[in-house]
Amino acid sequence: MIEEKVIPIALLGFGTVGYGTYQVLKRQEPEMVKKTGARLEIRKILVRDVKKAAAKVEDPSLITDSWEEILEDPKIQIVAELMGGLEPAGTYIRQALLAGKHVVTANKDLLAQNHGKLLDLAGEKGCDLLFEAAVAGAIPVITPLKQSLAANRLDEIMGIVNGTTNFILTRMNQEGMEFSEALSLAADLGYAEADPTADIEGLDAGRKVAILASIAYHSRVALEDVHIEGITKITAKDMQYAREMGCVIKLIGMSRCDGGQIEAYVAPMLIPSSHPLASVNDAYNAVFVHGDAVGDAMFFGKGAGQLPTASAVAGDLFEIARNILHGCCGRISCTCYKHLPVRPMKEVKSRYFLRFLVEDRAGVLAELSAVFARYQVSVEQVMQKKKQGHWAELVIITEEVREGDMEQALLAIQEKDCTREISSVIRAYGEPEN
Amino acid sequence: MIEEKVIPIALLGFGTVGYGTYQVLKRQEPEMVKKTGARLEIRKILVRDVKKAAAKVEDPSLITDSWEEILEDPKIQIVAELMGGLEPAGTYIRQALLAGKHVVTANKDLLAQNHGKLLDLAGEKGCDLLFEAAVAGAIPVITPLKQSLAANRLDEIMGIVNGTTNFILTRMNQEGMEFSEALSLAADLGYAEADPTADIEGLDAGRKVAILASIAYHSRVALEDVHIEGITKITAKDMQYAREMGCVIKLIGMSRCDGGQIEAYVAPMLIPSSHPLASVNDAYNAVFVHGDAVGDAMFFGKGAGQLPTASAVAGDLFEIARNILHGCCGRISCTCYKHLPVRPMKEVKSRYFLRFLVEDRAGVLAELSAVFARYQVSVEQVMQKKKQGHWAELVIITEEVREGDMEQALLAIQEKDCTREISSVIRAYGEPEN
Repeated sequence: MIEEKVIPIALLGFGTVGYGTYQVLKRQEPEMVKKTGARLEIRKILVRDVKKAAAKVEDPSLITDSWEEILEDPKIQIVAELMGGLEPAGTYIRQALLAGKHVVTANKDLLAQNHGKLLDLAGEKGCDLLFEAAVAGAIPVITPLKQSLAANRLDEIMGIVNGTTNFILTRMNQEGMEFSEALSLAADLGYAEADPTADIEGLDAGRKVAILASIAYHSRVALEDVHIEGITKITAKDMQYAREMGCVIKLIGMSRCDGGQIEAYVAPMLIPSSHPLASVNDAYNAVFVHGDAVGDAMFFGKGAGQLPTASAVAGDLFEIARNILHGCCGRISCTCYKHLPVRPMKEVKSRYFLRFLVEDRAGVLAELSAVFARYQVSVEQVMQKKKQGHWAELVIITEEVREGDMEQALLAIQEKDCTREISSVIRAYGEPEN
Repeated sequence: MIEEKVIPIALLGFGTVGYGTYQVLKRQEPEMVKKTGARLEIRKILVRDVKKAAAKVEDPSLITDSWEEILEDPKIQIVAELMGGLEPAGTYIRQALLAGKHVVTANKDLLAQNHGKLLDLAGEKGCDLLFEAAVAGAIPVITPLKQSLAANRLDEIMGIVNGTTNFILTRMNQEGMEFSEALSLAADLGYAEADPTADIEGLDAGRKVAILASIAYHSRVALEDVHIEGITKITAKDMQYAREMGCVIKLIGMSRCDGGQIEAYVAPMLIPSSHPLASVNDAYNAVFVHGDAVGDAMFFGKGAGQLPTASAVAGDLFEIARNILHGCCGRISCTCYKHLPVRPMKEVKSRYFLRFLVEDRAGVLAELSAVFARYQVSVEQVMQKKKQGHWAELVIITEEVREGDMEQALLAIQEKDCTREISSVIRAYGEPEN
């Protein structure tokens, strides 16, 4: 039995996640020592507005607006960075590691850009840098990937990793709403921020893909390596047709690794209704992974929210506490020991769901098929939908095709006289070829 | 950078899981050192039939039928017990721990009975005893519970933790098969063993519930604390009516913790189709957990099979390798620091799905309702199904009721003249009251 030990920590930021972490640690006070062998004691909380924050805690002397006060306190062993944003968060984390303090962060913006450098620095200083909360909120993903699934060669990791867009797409699917209507509802219910751009344009999901792919394939993938598309062009009609074809449309953070190359992108995709990700609805997140031994596995839960995110932060704090007591900090540090190239998007293969308005006369399908054939696009499924005047709506699902070829084919189709409009071009999930 | 180190290990058993682990370790050879800092080297493989096993490995000198040879080799640091069964596996694990060797095991039979004692022994000897593969096969569950979700007070952990029964129930639900027909199919396809009793009677799931509940609530739950019911009485008709009520029937390993008591049982249950467990089909497993911070989370994947199970075993081996290198074995040992009583089954509350054949005349429902009221059973939903001669089929879903009260009510109903038969009594999942 290890005797009780106190580990002083500091929280940086006291917004939603910071206050949630404070609450979770308070709740855990009676059992923390039994769980970890140590008592994590919040010694300082860094805020901008001391007065406002002081009202939220039992002991207002914890609150400070001075980072130096925390950095220069040698007793503080762990810093939980819960402010978000690139700066000053990045500087604080670097300075904390340089001072030999362990760090927990929920900062996906920063990690998607500096994942590697920060982990290198932590490694050099023998410090822990844990970030379970940065991807998929409450859901244990990083630890299972780095530990439980370590004996796998993973070749696919994909997920629904943004709650705002999943809420919007769920409403569109279940209630036939258009995008703008569902976005308004999300804003009204607090699922979308005042400026929802980073969510609906896929940027937030892109950051998580960068982090997940780096861990899954042991090779650093940065945000700029991830091709990003949002959901603003998805219509209620796309949803309806997808449903008729046994699919739902989800914003998928996708990555694969094969032939020594990594693919990483965020895009709306048709997912078969039988796929485990298809029934992940509303603000829930899930990460789906495929490995050579484990086969398919999925982790599901809340991707955001005060207490769920705090659950992940506090789990990391407990983990560092155990490492400190057992003298094994830095036990699992950066796991990127490869340098794999990222496949150019033009080379990435996908199936596609295409929706066209074309002239309603015999021979049009033959004309389009000829164009497709010229660019190696094979058609898997065709549905002729209702006519609009002398235009007919055509829905096509293709077999796997290189994105570059698909672009060429669509340009050629656009130029044909029989084409009135290319209404939708959406990727469709297909099992990776093995 | 830690320099390359060799960690000699032994496998006990070379059946499905043993051979799978051998294969996974072979595949991982090129990357193992980069992942863990060490090379795990299989030094010995314990088998009964040396000749048969020797044909399956590159180096037949690894194969032995002498446990002493392994036990007495001080260089062997980790033993992976993959034989199954209570003995001699239990003795071997105890002897290995006493000799200071770390142990990985996939043996749920043993852990469900001796979980506590073995972990105590490991703790005394400063050894690791890991068993991710013992619950839900490939799915990372134990590590996420002990680490990632450690800062939660968990109040529910439930799951589909037996692939054979889930395959049978999926066929019954999707194809309208009767139990016996689906069991035959499962046997034909290799999803059911020659003697399927332990699976279809719920015993296998019960073992996993004992282990999961022990970890989730930090209090030892043994197999004999788990009330167990199987799926042999479930009919195609139950499935059909459940479906009409928006539910599916699954064999659920259920446990809850509230009011300082633990509930633990295995039983077929109606699950709403919208619940994440409802779409876990065929031989897949999933574990669903609820905690005060994380909210709802679920872990999904393959619950059995050669490589999936080996994925979990090898993940544990990698974990111990890291601990050995960092001198922190025993870092996470037994986490049962409470002594909570297990609630008697009579006190456990459930909703119920009931199917009766009753006399087809006015006033019968009133008579039954009067009996229910006498025993505090509130009716939530009633469906009158098609008549059979002058008998009518009645399907009722009740609100939550103590199991003892339900038994009394059913006895009283059985004795009424208007009752021809009580055809089905199946629990129905309801959210825990908070």
